Formats: sequence, structure tokens, C-alpha cells
Amino acid sequence: MSPILGLDPGSQRTGYGVIERRGGTPRFLACGVIRPDARSPLPERLGSIHREVRSVMRQWEPAEVAIESGFVHRNIRSALVLGQARGAALAAVMDSPRPPQVVEYSPRQVKLSMTAFGGAEKSQVQKMVTLLLALGEMPAEDAADALAVALCHLFRARAPGLATVGGEA
Amino acid sequence: MSPILGLDPGSQRTGYGVIERRGGTPRFLACGVIRPDARSPLPERLGSIHREVRSVMRQWEPAEVAIESGFVHRNIRSALVLGQARGAALAAVMDSPRPPQVVEYSPRQVKLSMTAFGGAEKSQVQKMVTLLLALGEMPAEDAADALAVALCHLFRARAPGLATVGGEA
Repeated sequence: MSPILGLDPGSQRTGYGVIERRGGTPRFLACGVIRPDARSPLPERLGSIHREVRSVMRQWEPAEVAIESGFVHRNIRSALVLGQARGAALAAVMDSPRPPQVVEYSPRQVKLSMTAFGGAEKSQVQKMVTLLLALGEMPAEDAADALAVALCHLFRARAPGLATVGGEA
Repeated sequence: MSPILGLDPGSQRTGYGVIERRGGTPRFLACGVIRPDARSPLPERLGSIHREVRSVMRQWEPAEVAIESGFVHRNIRSALVLGQARGAALAAVMDSPRPPQVVEYSPRQVKLSMTAFGGAEKSQVQKMVTLLLALGEMPAEDAADALAVALCHLFRARAPGLATVGGEA
């Protein structure tokens, strides 16, 4: 089966996780956290997010990419910065001979698909991801969040009414 | 002299303008508006912004890029979408063997450098850009905004206290 890439972008840390469907069960392929040099100006950090996401895309060639619409930001300034990290990551996702389908999930949808109640703590998501993918050790928080959104997609892809990324500005 | 690229990103229309210093005067090289298909999902539009900005970068190889910090958006949702367009554009700017210097200017700084008072109407900016670059016809609004930020950089690059793009999320 074709891999599914989950992404949890941020200007300081961008988590990614790659899984695949194997029969009825999800199988872990890879995960990691892209950490641009915090001392670099934002354009350089965006360049580094873009390069590393592109390299993950080239390695795994996922046909489906799931991304958190994640929006717990309080102010317009942080929304603008988070948006830039997402834009750099999504541009890398689309910079492919066969661009994948991109599907967006809210933090609540992701948590619901992990824990059956939408208000899970971060550490519960990490534990559920570790359990569901039978990992030897718990992934870093941002990598676990990315794996969780990939798992959310895998679980929900069978269900109708998928949300896709949209919006205007 | 090395060209200066001005960018005015948006998810629907991204303006770009390329100028160079020629002695003491700015000279027009190119401008345009990237208009992703409005019916496409956001990731595809981001991919198209990224490809076209990269192609402008490859054609002109600017050593300096000026971008509007422009933020007249009312809500967090539109900030997030605008941020994604900027992120896709800036990732293309940095996707270069010799990444340029990127400098950010506020809408007010850009207007001040055009009209000596910061509250200029859009159409005044278009007229000033046409005059300053001795253009045969008035460029489209988004292209004019991009040329204006490039001109702002050219005029202000001599002055101290440059703003550079920054921020966390």
C-alpha cells in the first residue's frame, strides 16, 4: 500500500510521521522532527522546513498527506508565523511529479480518533501512537502528533465527509 | 548591479516586481501577478505560488528580496491563509544555491517611501510606481505593490535599522 504522511508544522519544530495500511492495521514506517536553527531568521527556517519535508516526500512518495488544521493560537501574529511554516511544508508536499491528496484534520478530530474522547492530553496521544503502531519507544511529542494525524487519516479515510484544506486571504 | 525582487504574497494573487539599481536611479526589469486557479484547493494554490516564485528567482537571481509584512487582516483564519501563501513564496525564495537577503517592510513603510505620507491610496501607489520606474503603462495593483516594496528596499537600503523577517510560533 502507499504510505500516508502526517505533518504537524511549526516554525520551531515540524513533526512528520509516515505509516502505511497493512491489511486492517497501520504500520509504522518513519517519523521525525525538523528543528530549524532557532537563531536563524524566519526565511531560513522556512527554507529548512521546505527542504526537509521535500526530502521526506521523495523518500516515501506518499499518495496521501494528512495535516493538522491545528489552531490553538491566540493572536494574529502567531497565526501568520504558523501559516508560513505550513505554507513552506505544503509547498514541499506539492512539489512533486504526482502531488498527493492533502486532507486537513482539526486537533479535536485527531484526538478523537486516538482516544475516543476529544480532549486528550499530549502525553496520552504519545502513548496511544506508541501502542497503535507497536513502537519500541515513545516518539518525541511533535513526531507523535504527526503520526497521530496520519493515523486519524487512516482511520477516517473509510468514513465519508472528509475535510480538505481550503480558505481564502 | 544585482536585481531586487519585491513580493506581495496572497493566496489568490501574489504580485512580484524586479528592479535594479542603475547609478542613483531604480530601473524596471519585470513584474507580474501569480493567480492560482481559485477553484483549486489551497495546497495546489500554494504549489503554484511556489513554482512561479521559484521560476522568477531562477530567471533574475536577486541577491535581495523585499516582502511586505502586510497585515491588515481582521481575523486569525485569514492570517493563517495569508501566512501559508507567504510561506510558500519564501520557501521558493530560499530554495536557491545562494539564498538572498530577505527584508520585511510594513505597508506603512512602503507607502511612506512612495508618497512621503504613509496613508496613500492603492491607486496612488500604482501611479508613483509608474512614475518612478518610467513605465509605459500602469501595472496591475498586486504587481505595483510588489514593485513598491522593491523600491522601498532600494530607497531604504542605504538607511540603518532595517527590519528583517522574524517571529515564532
